[in-house]
Amino acid sequence: MMNHAMTESSFDLSFRRHLDVSKELIWRAWTEPELLKIWFCPRPWKTVHCEIDLRAGGIFKTIMQSPQGDLFPNEGCFLEIEKNKQLVWTNSLLPGFRPNQVANLGQEDNAFFFTATIHLEDRVGGTTYTASVKHADEASCNKHKAMGFEQGWGIALDQLIEMLRQGI
Amino acid sequence: MMNHAMTESSFDLSFRRHLDVSKELIWRAWTEPELLKIWFCPRPWKTVHCEIDLRAGGIFKTIMQSPQGDLFPNEGCFLEIEKNKQLVWTNSLLPGFRPNQVANLGQEDNAFFFTATIHLEDRVGGTTYTASVKHADEASCNKHKAMGFEQGWGIALDQLIEMLRQGI
Repeated sequence: MMNHAMTESSFDLSFRRHLDVSKELIWRAWTEPELLKIWFCPRPWKTVHCEIDLRAGGIFKTIMQSPQGDLFPNEGCFLEIEKNKQLVWTNSLLPGFRPNQVANLGQEDNAFFFTATIHLEDRVGGTTYTASVKHADEASCNKHKAMGFEQGWGIALDQLIEMLRQGI
Repeated sequence: MMNHAMTESSFDLSFRRHLDVSKELIWRAWTEPELLKIWFCPRPWKTVHCEIDLRAGGIFKTIMQSPQGDLFPNEGCFLEIEKNKQLVWTNSLLPGFRPNQVANLGQEDNAFFFTATIHLEDRVGGTTYTASVKHADEASCNKHKAMGFEQGWGIALDQLIEMLRQGI
């Protein structure tokens, strides 16, 4: 499926897709840890751990596992939660809004702060899905782009849709 | 007036005071730019500019001026707003929740991320006022302590009370 690339600012990355599943199911896939673990990470990588406390300042933590078995934890907190509509989180702040440090992010060369937004909007027969990520500067944004933001998030979204089609 | 020092974690600084003014007036002093400019900065420093957009992700920007005329901008955004009760903001995120960088903070040696909370609670004859600041690590916390967090915030609070007593 094609992603339609969109850019709000030169420090941002985003894409939009028209999906034939409901906002409510996409929301569940993003906010229930047992569902998120199924699709969140492009295979053969796995999401082996997920913690979600769905309130502003609440934890959003995942641990990804490479095919070689290495673990990559990602921790941040939610900033805005509008059920079935908008989910915003960041890794600039840890749970309880405690400031984070780039040094804490691990994978030093690829480490950067971001704030991500998933926006869901009704459309005839489904949902318009917009994922966008804000960065601190152009260098972080380019790093994320080079890591394959659009492809990575796109494959994960394909896996999400596949999960929903199989029934949850 | 004495501040009662309190510590939630070794990365945090906070103090509590019992004040004989209402929550509603303290809230106005913290959230109306023209009022905040009067008391926010220990004199003879001045707050020469203040922008407040009182919603999660909204701007909280001040510019302080030293007695020598040097300008020190501080920009961040609000995280939680519970009118007359709790105000939370950070400089880890810029307006719109965009990640900030320590390099953007200026005054490099003294730069650090923080998340601050002002909590107001009714008590007989006034308000229990708690100011607390979370840091990313012990080093940032110690830096803030050495800069005179408690004295600085305490003097500013004295100026706030003085302003309220004179009538706003």
